[in-house]
Parts: sequence; C-alpha cells; structure tokens
Amino acid sequence: MITRIAFLVFPRLTLLDFVGGYDALRRVAALGVDPTVKHRIIGTAPEIADENGLVMKPDSVYEDLRDFDLLYVPGGFGTRQLVDDERCIAYLRSWGTTRPLASVCTGSLLLGRAGYLTGKRATTNHAAFDLLRPYCANVVTDRRIVDEGLVVTAGGVSSSLDLGLYLVEKFWGQPAREKIAAKMEYRGYSAV
Amino acid sequence: MITRIAFLVFPRLTLLDFVGGYDALRRVAALGVDPTVKHRIIGTAPEIADENGLVMKPDSVYEDLRDFDLLYVPGGFGTRQLVDDERCIAYLRSWGTTRPLASVCTGSLLLGRAGYLTGKRATTNHAAFDLLRPYCANVVTDRRIVDEGLVVTAGGVSSSLDLGLYLVEKFWGQPAREKIAAKMEYRGYSAV
Repeated sequence: MITRIAFLVFPRLTLLDFVGGYDALRRVAALGVDPTVKHRIIGTAPEIADENGLVMKPDSVYEDLRDFDLLYVPGGFGTRQLVDDERCIAYLRSWGTTRPLASVCTGSLLLGRAGYLTGKRATTNHAAFDLLRPYCANVVTDRRIVDEGLVVTAGGVSSSLDLGLYLVEKFWGQPAREKIAAKMEYRGYSAV
Repeated sequence: MITRIAFLVFPRLTLLDFVGGYDALRRVAALGVDPTVKHRIIGTAPEIADENGLVMKPDSVYEDLRDFDLLYVPGGFGTRQLVDDERCIAYLRSWGTTRPLASVCTGSLLLGRAGYLTGKRATTNHAAFDLLRPYCANVVTDRRIVDEGLVVTAGGVSSSLDLGLYLVEKFWGQPAREKIAAKMEYRGYSAV
C-alpha cells in the first residue's frame, strides 16, 4: 500500500516532468481517493532552479527515504551532471529493490546509473534514447510508459501527466484514475 | 510582436495551470523559434505556495507590467480570495486593453473581476462555470480554449498545455506550435 510519496527535484530539471505527475498524485489525497496519502518534495539542495532558472524550495534535502513507499524522479538537462554525482546516485541506490520507483523523461538515466534498469526494458525522452541504451536491456521507443513491475519509466515531458495517472491506476485502481483525470480535464490519457 | 511574457503566480495556485503553459512558451526561445523572447515569473509575494504548500520564488513581486507583451494568469483555489484583493485586481487592470492576456482554469475569475470579460465569451474549470457567469456575456462549456482576440481563456488544469501551444501558434505560427508540441511529446493538442 502506498501512503508516502517522495518526489525528487534537482537543479536544471524540466519542471513539467515533475508537475505533470505531481498534479495527478497529489489528488489521490486531495480528492479523497485515500486521504491518508502524503507526499514530500525532496531536493538535492535547499533551492532548486529549473532549466530556465525558476526557483523552488523543496520540503527537505536528501531526506531519508526509509519511510516512503513510492519514489518519483523527473528528468531535465540536470540529469547529465547528476549521473556522475556520487551522493545523488548513492541516495537513489538507498531506495533498494523492494519498493516501486518511477521516472519521467531523462529521469530514467538516473535510475539507469543507479542500476535499476539492468536487464530491463525502459524508455525516456525521444532525444535521449541513445543515452539510455547503456543502462538497460532494451530501450522501448514506441510507448509512453514502460512498466517493469517495481520500475516504471515514462517518455518525455508531457508523458508526466500519463505517468501520474498510470501510477494512480496501478496503485489505487481505474476509477481513481478516471476521477482524477476528469478533475484535471485531461482527455488524452495513454500509456501507449 | 511578443518578446516579453509575464507569468503571474499567487498563493494557492494550481501549479500545473501555470507550468503547462510555461513549458510551451519558454520553448519559443529555448528551441530557437524566436531566441529574443524573454519571460518573467511575477508573484503577488516573494514566496508563493501552491495548493499543496509547494513553495516557489518568483523573479519579482508586482513588477511593473509596462514592458511586457503577453500576460499569463493561472488558476487555483487562491483565486477565490484574490478576486477581492484590491492590489491584485488593480495590478491586473494596469495591463489595459491593448495587449493580449490569457488565463487557465479559474484564472478567468481574476480576468473577469478586473473587467476584461465584460460582454465577452469565456471559459474556466468545469467546476467553476457558475462562478464565472457574473463576469462575462457567455460561459462556453464545451471548448478548452475561447479566443476573444486580446483575451484568451482556457479550461481546467491540463488545458494549460493546450493554451500554451495555442498561444505559440497564435503568435509564432503553426510550425512553431508543432515543433514545440513534438519536443514536449504532447500528442493530444486541442483547442476544442
């Protein structure tokens, strides 16, 4: 059962990669699907500037992930540096292989670097297929969402809305997904 | 010609209302459609918490709007207080009636309160049609985007992606819209 969601944010993320999934997942509690669900925005630093310099202040920095049930990792140009950031990769590895985690866009490069995609199918932004190849068994180029059980990867940017809704359906059921998509006025939901 | 875009943000906004349009419009410069286009995130306060308490720091507070060419106003529960905030409404009125402005979701209540929708058709989140009615001639309930020339209103939450792309097409042409939508991996674009 998922009751605590961690969203990771980092410098030069693509803001919509994060917010598209955040909007769907925050509504699990807000719309009463499960009012006990909580989330935290966890940063790699106390202030995070997106690809265009927009600054947000996460709830915490490198907060211990022990008590969370789902980890959500967006993408963005910042991932190109972050794949070589030992602290960040060790932090992602602390998540382990017993709880679900998900990425949007080039967030999958971080999951790959942390070892979560080894032997698995995965996807990413269409411009980053080649960057993802070394980390996984098979880069899926024709689906918005690739679900390998505990590891779910999504395509670029606006796929974040589909990923958020996909995770809502995966963990809270199809009626919850439909209710939240209606509230978001999102008609284009597709995992494919 | 649009070269300076102002995004207004305020307490208890719906973050996706803002970010969906921001992502499309920021790419006008980022993808080289017009590299001279600049934008500013303008807050009603130095720190802005969204509906769920996520904090961002705008570029400025109530910055003079004189030099901007396009004003973008998101929605959210915060609009219910803001329609009675004299400073905010006076600020919106300072925009005047010679430059284009656009809203997502209940951002149209603010445009309405500032007088921009008088005698015009407009739309908003499906849950707020009744709240919009006093401010405009006709609430359009079956379109994502209602374009009245200088005043463009959009529906709820995820309509922000469509509005952003609609404005890209309106001011920079259809090829620009298609290029940016492809980069965002957004297939569901619709103004209807």
